[in-house]
Amino acid sequence: MNLNFSKRMDRIKASEIREILKLTENPEVISFAGGLPAPELFPVEKIKQASIEVLDELGTKALQYSTTEGYLPLREKIVKRMDKFGIEADAENILITSGSQQGLDLTGKVFLDPGDVVLCESPSYLGALGAFKQYQPTFVEVPTDDSGMIMKDLEEIIKTTDRIKVIYVVPDFQNPSGRTWTVERRKKLIEIANKYNLPIVEDNPYGELRFEGEIPPSVKSFDTEGRVVFLGTFSKTFCPGFRLGWTFADKAVINKYILVKQGVDLQTSTISQMQLNRFLEKYDLDEHIKKIIDVYRRRRNLMLKTMEEEFPAGVDFTKPEGGLFTWVTLPEHINARELAKLAIEKKVAFVPGGSFFPNGGNENTMRINYSNMDEERIVVGIKRLAETIKEML
Amino acid sequence: MNLNFSKRMDRIKASEIREILKLTENPEVISFAGGLPAPELFPVEKIKQASIEVLDELGTKALQYSTTEGYLPLREKIVKRMDKFGIEADAENILITSGSQQGLDLTGKVFLDPGDVVLCESPSYLGALGAFKQYQPTFVEVPTDDSGMIMKDLEEIIKTTDRIKVIYVVPDFQNPSGRTWTVERRKKLIEIANKYNLPIVEDNPYGELRFEGEIPPSVKSFDTEGRVVFLGTFSKTFCPGFRLGWTFADKAVINKYILVKQGVDLQTSTISQMQLNRFLEKYDLDEHIKKIIDVYRRRRNLMLKTMEEEFPAGVDFTKPEGGLFTWVTLPEHINARELAKLAIEKKVAFVPGGSFFPNGGNENTMRINYSNMDEERIVVGIKRLAETIKEML
Repeated sequence: MNLNFSKRMDRIKASEIREILKLTENPEVISFAGGLPAPELFPVEKIKQASIEVLDELGTKALQYSTTEGYLPLREKIVKRMDKFGIEADAENILITSGSQQGLDLTGKVFLDPGDVVLCESPSYLGALGAFKQYQPTFVEVPTDDSGMIMKDLEEIIKTTDRIKVIYVVPDFQNPSGRTWTVERRKKLIEIANKYNLPIVEDNPYGELRFEGEIPPSVKSFDTEGRVVFLGTFSKTFCPGFRLGWTFADKAVINKYILVKQGVDLQTSTISQMQLNRFLEKYDLDEHIKKIIDVYRRRRNLMLKTMEEEFPAGVDFTKPEGGLFTWVTLPEHINARELAKLAIEKKVAFVPGGSFFPNGGNENTMRINYSNMDEERIVVGIKRLAETIKEML
Repeated sequence: MNLNFSKRMDRIKASEIREILKLTENPEVISFAGGLPAPELFPVEKIKQASIEVLDELGTKALQYSTTEGYLPLREKIVKRMDKFGIEADAENILITSGSQQGLDLTGKVFLDPGDVVLCESPSYLGALGAFKQYQPTFVEVPTDDSGMIMKDLEEIIKTTDRIKVIYVVPDFQNPSGRTWTVERRKKLIEIANKYNLPIVEDNPYGELRFEGEIPPSVKSFDTEGRVVFLGTFSKTFCPGFRLGWTFADKAVINKYILVKQGVDLQTSTISQMQLNRFLEKYDLDEHIKKIIDVYRRRRNLMLKTMEEEFPAGVDFTKPEGGLFTWVTLPEHINARELAKLAIEKKVAFVPGGSFFPNGGNENTMRINYSNMDEERIVVGIKRLAETIKEML
């Protein structure tokens, strides 16, 4: 039997990362492949306490249907947390989503028709490319450097490209590159978006995990015309298992997202929203984030130090000031997909960087995660990886 | 500022039901409008116990990312529960979704291109129409009677309609009509779908809430070619606040749904899945369902009896053998939207039936919910409604 699927299905393939992650289920494999937060830091006991209180005090309300927009007390708490990014929000501008991944899917629904163009950083977040791809757009990659997207290139591309619908950016500790945009670039992005009347989607899953220096103002904070949609998540600061994120946008825009979410899943889990809300009432999430930062900073330091010591000349990597990833560039002739196969034989895993370029190329790159591996294994794993690279030189 | 949204947004409007539900927030209003399960029956204490155990025993695993397919032990339990519907399932054919509403959205993604045709019952479930509408199809309504969709009409429509992609049906205690298909119609539907090679989406949120008689075999149970996608949910038998449902389909089909869900939200909440799984391990959901059935049966009995006594001649209503709704047909000249406005002044609410016809018409119908109102208020509410109808005669 051959059923007739939609045209979009022709282009949708399994995420390469998910396939790699299956190989890393073997506990002997040291995996730098995932983007998982360190589970040993999850506040299990506090979450249990919050859960008990929600069921004791809110009981049946926590188990019933609720509004599409999301639980108001939680939205109000998110409003306050947005201060960090220099954003003055209002609860009516916030929609609770099932992880920020859902914010990406809703973005596709709200903005994209088949053949529309999404501008993104080169490289860009694989999960966003996967979400958008379901709406059959074309991706145009904008070159980047250590300060973020290159604005001259962006403007040139906008001038010469039809049907641009969305500019998608991850300005803080980008996945996969670990890079952070300068404030100047952020301002300039708004200036260009204003000039050409384009919406920007600013995805910020890692911004609060900053190991040094101050959190820079978000792109959204410079937005005077309501053209930036900001996506946030509790997956990296609280835990991902709850699937709780949010979308923040101008009223006219967020209303479209709310309308679309109604059809998509009616609402995000009532009880999960109430549990997180209670956690935020009872405990200090910022204190908890400090603990995460301490652990991740040590892991990053150790990983970069080991890379410096072990990697052969000609291998470069980024020095992220936060987040979960560093980005490695190998000599041109080394294909990271081939390297990954050899590496898995030595029981170390990573994600080949080519996956993060929607139009291909750049096969000599790799994404390395440091948040989800203890220090001892970071050293052993990087040594194994260095050996593998040397064999391919 | 005027942003350029996708074409689909031109057609997407707020759900009329959600708007009516806002009016019913006034506690003085007796609402037959929603489709909410009775919250006083939610097993709050048992859910609390299951939650504590999950966090004590599975701790960090419950809070981490997990697979898109869903938690295997939960999928295995769903396999067993599918026996009720005459379905021999396998866990690999099941995808856990965020409510069965998400199954509807994924169906749209997997099957529908703009301009494709969805065949549905007339009337049909508003939430499904809303989910599919986001994929810009045309709806063709197939006439129904008390035995379900009329098969002669279905075949005639199939013969004369281009681009049919999906047949969407709710054969058990349909929302909004409360009607149940005969077994003959179910078999015939499969026969026709086989003949014309069409997929069927069988949505079954209420089938387990049967007040009398045996659960008939599902449409899926007669499917020998893997063309039926079956959607199930725990929203009506456990609680809706968890947002847990499932999609069951042939391997080749479910794989498409899994691929699409990866981009949509990565996965459904890990902890919610584990909590429900633990609940199913510790407690007897079928015993719990019996309690729900006892309460809903009494409410249905009382509502139908009161309708018989109070409604004027010329007003008809269905006699559902289960589920949440009865469907009222008024004399032709009474517009139920007008009636709803008068009714809300008398502090009683319902959903005008016209909303359930994607191509309009049938404004003399209404959907009445009996699951979410205590017996005393059912009597008072139906009397108020009868008075309002009499005023419009």
